[in-house]
This record gives sequence, structure tokens and C-alpha cells, in this order.
Amino acid sequence: MLLDAAREAAAEAVGCRADELVFTSSGTRAVHSGVAGVLAGRRRVGRHLIVSAVEHSSVLHSAEAFEADGGTVTRVAVDRTGTVTASSYAEALRSGTALACLQSANHEVGTEQPVAEVASVCREAGVPLLVDAAQSLGWGRVDGDWSVLTGSAHKWGGPSGVGLLVVRKGVRFATQGPADERESGRAAGFENIPAIVAAVASLRAVRAEADAEAVRLRELTDRIRTRVPSLVPDVEVAGHPTRRLPGVVTFSCLYVDGETLLHELDREGFSVSSGSSCTSSTLTPSHVLRAMGVLSEGNVRVSLPAGAMEADVERFLAVLPEAVAAVREKLGAPVPADVAVVRDDVLVVDALGRRCPLPVIELAKVIGDVPVGGTVRVLSDDEAARLDIPAWCEMRGQEYVGEEEAEKGSAYVVRRVS
Amino acid sequence: MLLDAAREAAAEAVGCRADELVFTSSGTRAVHSGVAGVLAGRRRVGRHLIVSAVEHSSVLHSAEAFEADGGTVTRVAVDRTGTVTASSYAEALRSGTALACLQSANHEVGTEQPVAEVASVCREAGVPLLVDAAQSLGWGRVDGDWSVLTGSAHKWGGPSGVGLLVVRKGVRFATQGPADERESGRAAGFENIPAIVAAVASLRAVRAEADAEAVRLRELTDRIRTRVPSLVPDVEVAGHPTRRLPGVVTFSCLYVDGETLLHELDREGFSVSSGSSCTSSTLTPSHVLRAMGVLSEGNVRVSLPAGAMEADVERFLAVLPEAVAAVREKLGAPVPADVAVVRDDVLVVDALGRRCPLPVIELAKVIGDVPVGGTVRVLSDDEAARLDIPAWCEMRGQEYVGEEEAEKGSAYVVRRVS
Repeated sequence: MLLDAAREAAAEAVGCRADELVFTSSGTRAVHSGVAGVLAGRRRVGRHLIVSAVEHSSVLHSAEAFEADGGTVTRVAVDRTGTVTASSYAEALRSGTALACLQSANHEVGTEQPVAEVASVCREAGVPLLVDAAQSLGWGRVDGDWSVLTGSAHKWGGPSGVGLLVVRKGVRFATQGPADERESGRAAGFENIPAIVAAVASLRAVRAEADAEAVRLRELTDRIRTRVPSLVPDVEVAGHPTRRLPGVVTFSCLYVDGETLLHELDREGFSVSSGSSCTSSTLTPSHVLRAMGVLSEGNVRVSLPAGAMEADVERFLAVLPEAVAAVREKLGAPVPADVAVVRDDVLVVDALGRRCPLPVIELAKVIGDVPVGGTVRVLSDDEAARLDIPAWCEMRGQEYVGEEEAEKGSAYVVRRVS
Repeated sequence: MLLDAAREAAAEAVGCRADELVFTSSGTRAVHSGVAGVLAGRRRVGRHLIVSAVEHSSVLHSAEAFEADGGTVTRVAVDRTGTVTASSYAEALRSGTALACLQSANHEVGTEQPVAEVASVCREAGVPLLVDAAQSLGWGRVDGDWSVLTGSAHKWGGPSGVGLLVVRKGVRFATQGPADERESGRAAGFENIPAIVAAVASLRAVRAEADAEAVRLRELTDRIRTRVPSLVPDVEVAGHPTRRLPGVVTFSCLYVDGETLLHELDREGFSVSSGSSCTSSTLTPSHVLRAMGVLSEGNVRVSLPAGAMEADVERFLAVLPEAVAAVREKLGAPVPADVAVVRDDVLVVDALGRRCPLPVIELAKVIGDVPVGGTVRVLSDDEAARLDIPAWCEMRGQEYVGEEEAEKGSAYVVRRVS
């Protein structure tokens, strides 16, 4: 009875029928099961999958597993704000497309996607759209005529261990893995009823205050978006300026090591995230920042939870400039004289073995040494350089010529324009 | 840090290295992932799997999924106490065996399996043994040289949403499904840290009192095993008399409808389970009772939780005889005269359309009407009759001749011996 009541309440919040919704053990599991179930159910239609380039890793890993199993995946590009267009989904659709996936909003930069338009394009082509609504479900229903939807309770402030998988009636769906009679056969394992009840109660509670809280948090994140670039030199704010989640704001600080900045902020009592390469176990920048083509070094993601106080935001804005300056000072040690040598009319910077943000710092230090029209070649074997050198050029109005193979790593060629 | 500490403590309780143990979202998920991971990792060895016939449904469903994917499964039979033998596993092993599975103890009748002997037989053959230790982990470590082990926190009194999967170093293991970096890549999804910490704390707490509590509960379940057959006529107690879990006791009452008996006991404040066909959504008796060849009608499983009181057991024993008698009285209505007709020297009972326990009741009513040496043919289309008519013959010392195809359902032939 508790489970039935929770299912009814969750379905009401999502905007679906109760018999279309099952509870999974996590949002990741909901995505894995949802993607695999539709791909298997529509196997006869074809083995083509569409995802955006900025989906959550649970979607991208599902896509990779599908490719490993012989499927074909199209990754739809985003613009510099992180947004896809319905027309790029329309172009990606083909006769063998089994499924398209699109997040309701991005988890790193907060950009909201045009789900209703994309759903409409997919619906016309007869292709189901799976919406990963993990980021937005606490704020409201997902607009548009989607076919499958996933969510995660801990993202809306509920407990861990509860995800949602909604499959609209009429969508061909074949659950993968061993049979299990629970949750309509779509989510194996003993139902975690206490957590499910708590998850749905928290969703209702969060939704009751969502509209008012969205206005309040949006004002606070707007404040961060506007004031950080004036308080801290050489900052790029990421994500769409208006079509975005209320509580997320992301920016990157040039010449800053993300890991060190996180520690500086942590000492001041602020727990933030980062998509910088130095904060990742693989030493590659966030795939989201990479797909957007924005700066990844010194990246900071601030997530304001419901109830976040204005005073805390003000204190964050007060401590940030010094924290960034401290990191820059540590990294600002003079470049050894032997790294920059002029060969012909080209200045070569050897940044091999140096990690983000040092290659960009060294580029910035020497760009004034070549005449306007001259070029700098930065030799680097750091993954982040591939993203951050073009991003620096964009921010500084210099010309990014391109990447060339080098004996070790790559050579990134920049032409001085101004 | 909390997760690391929980992992260390769980590994200590299980008797393995911390880096061999991951937390999953349920015991079922641990079994699904464990079985699939070893079968994939050892695919080159062969595609043969061994399970016992009385495994938990998560193991049997994994085996069915493997068969659907082209694998071959041997289901090792059990004796009337529900026990496998190491020699039957030895016989089942062959050159292409990728994995063998055996529960530490049965979830329905409490019978403990000879895990150490089976592990030794498997080890000699170079085949890993996966032990589903869900039922016994709260009582202690699993003996023997097993290779993979699974567990479930809510079975030892911990919270829902936490399972354990242990894979010994050296076992070839290939996680299936989309990649996920958490839990050594073996359990996708956001780690449910509060539940994991609570699960491990409860395991330590339960273990601290396990030895004393086992003695106490075993005395209480012994009392039920001994006294129920003297308090209630026509009862069969199931499971091994000594090699069994301390807190589980199962018996079946002839001529009783399990569903109705559960309701009678529920009204008295006792929540028990049943493996009778009438309590299952598929209207088939429990696969465990079926594999053991014991009576399934009127089946009652009593699970005593840690801390169960002697007074409650005594009250259960006090109310049970009347509850059973009440159900039997309801079902005892005289059989319509036209169902039993003597054709030649055979008495035919038409029990078509009648559900368990009615076919057995009707057989019992007419067995005295044929001479010793004469036979009764019971026509029945109820799945439970296939198990319960032979079981009744065993209990009553009559001869079960066999099952014959009939125009509708089956004819179960019984010869009167005494």
C-alpha cells in the first residue's frame, strides 16, 4: 500500500500514469535500464542511437556499451552555451533510429535543453525520446511529448538509492538481464520501500516551494554570474545566460589549477565541484566543457541547494578573488628561460610534461614577444591544452590556427592578432 | 572515508580483502552481477553453469537468462531435506563449466548446504564457486574456499538497498552493462553511503550476538519442529532437522489452503510466509518444496527475527491448532456425489477445476472406498496436485503409481496399500 501510494504520488509529480512508472535503485540504473530496454525492444527498427554530446555519463556509457555491441551512435553537438537544437536532432534521425536521448538540463553548467521541440521532431519520425530529467525533476514536470523519462531522488534532495524510470504506454520495451517480478519486471531487487516513500515525500515537499525558490536562487546565481567576472580577472562564465537551472552556476578561471582552487575554497568552508582535468581521475577535462568548447582550467561549479542563504553567496563572492589570486601567485613562477626559443618567425614554447593550467600560462607570457601576425607553437602533452588553448584564444581575441602532430604530444599553433 | 571504513569492516565480517568487496544496490543485483560477470569473464572456458535446484530466484533467473543466451545449465537435485551433495556437484562438473552456484542455506526451509565440500570439489576442477550467502551472513562467515560471494543487508536486519558482491583475486570477471567508475566498476550508480554505513554497522552488531542468539533461536525453532506435529494432525515438517538456520522453520498442513491459513494467523497477529501454490501469483507451489518432493499445501514458513520472544512462540503454538482446524472445517464440505465413480476396478475422482488442497482432500475421502490393491485416479488440472498427491502417498504409506495424461489436466494414479 505504501509502495502504491508512493507510485501514484510520483506519477502525479512526473505527469504520467502510475503503471508507467517504476522505482529503480538509482538514477544511473534507471538510465541504463531505460536505454537498454528501448534499444532491445526496438531492435527490429534498427540499431542507431542519438545522444547529445553533453549527456550525463550514465547515458554516454550506455551509448558506448551499445557501440561495443555493434550499434551506431550519433552524438549531437552543442553550441558554446551547451544547448542542442531540434534541427540537429532532426538531421541525426534516420530510418534505423531506435532511440534518441536528451537531458532536460545539463548537470555541469545548468543549461536547459529544448526538450519539447526535440520530442516533437522525434515524435514526427516515430522515434521515442528518452529524457534524463535528473537535474530538473525537483523544479517541475518536463514539457513535451517525451516517451521515456528517468530521474534520481538524491538530485532533488531525497535519499540515495532511489531512481525513477517512466516508460509511456505504447513504447516497445524489452527489459534486459535476468527476470525479476518486482516493479513490473523493470527493476530487479527487493524494493527499498522506506527510501522510496521518503523520496516521494521529499519530491512533493520540494515541488511545493519550487516556484518561489527558483526565483530566489536564480537571483543568487545571477549575482554570481554577473559579479565574478568583475571581481576576478580572466574568468569565463559557462552555460546559457537565461535558459538554465536556477541553482547552478559554472565559471572557469584562466591560469588556475582547479584542484588547488577547490582546496582553497574548501578551507573557507565552500564545497564546490570542478570539471578541470586536474580534478578528474583520467586527467581529462569534463566532456561537457569540451563539447561546449569553453575554458576548462580553473573550473568551478557552484550548486546552491534549496534554502541556500544570500549571506553565504555574498561571503563566497568576498573570498573568491583572493582564493584565485593565491593560486595564480603560486603558479606564476617565472617560466625557465630555455622553454621559449624563436625558430624562424615562430616562437616555440615547450610545455611538455607540464599540466593544466601551465601550458596556457606559458602561452600567455610569450604572446607579447612575437609581432602581430607572428605565431606561437605550444608543445604540450596535456589533454586539457587541446580545449583550453583555443578557449584562451577566444577569450583574448587571438587566432587559434590549429593543432599539429609533434614528436611528442601536440603542437598548438596560435597567431597573434592584436 | 566512511565508504572505505565500511568496506574494511564488511570485508572483515565476510573474511575477504577489502578490495575484493563492492557494495551493490541489493542482494539480487549482487547475484545478477556476480553470475553474469564470471560467466562473461570465463566465456572462453565454456558456457556451462551449475546451480542447485533450490537456489534463490535471483540465481535461477540468472541461469534462465544464460540459457536464453545460448548457455547450458545443470540443476543439481536435492534430497528430501533440501540438501545437495558434493558428489552431485562433482558429477555435474565438466570441461566447459564456467561457474557453479550454491546457497549457504536455503531461504524457505533453512537447510544449510555443504558449501566447503562443494567448494573443494569445484576448486579441484578449477571452477569458481559462487555462494549466495544471503541467508547466513548474519550468523557468521561462510566456510570453505569459495570464489565469489553475495549477500543482502536487509536479510541480516540492515536497511534495504545494500547488497555485497565479493570476487576473490584471481577469478576472471568481466562486468556486464554500461561502464561506471564507482565500486571498482562492478556496481553502477551513486553510492548509497548512509545505507551502506548502516548496513555494515548492523552486521557488526548482529554478529556480536550471533552465537548466543543462534542457540536461543534454535531452541525455539526446535520447539516448533517437535510440537507442531503433535499439536496438529497431518503435518509434515520440512528441511534438515539439524543442519539448518537457527531462526527458520517450515511445515505443511495436509488439507489446508495456505492463503486462508495465513489470513487466520494474521488475525492472531502472526505474519508468516507460505510456499503453497495459492499464495503465489503463478499458482504453482514453491520451487524449493517441489525440488524436495515434500507436501506444499497448507505450507507455513515461520521466521524468527533476532530477539524473538519465547512467549510469542508459545502463543503461536497455542493458536495454530485451532487456526488449522478452522481452515480444514471450511474446506471439509462433503464432496458432491457425482465426482467419484467406479469404472472397472478403478475409482475415478474428478477434481478438475478444483484448487489445492481440494484434490488431495477428495483423494483422502475415497481411498477407503477401494479395496487394498485397488487404485484411485485423481483427475486434476491444478499444478500443486503434481507435488502434493505423491507427498500425501509418502505421508500415508500409500503407493503413488504415477501421472498419466488425461483429456484435460492429468490423472494421478494411487494404489491403496494399507
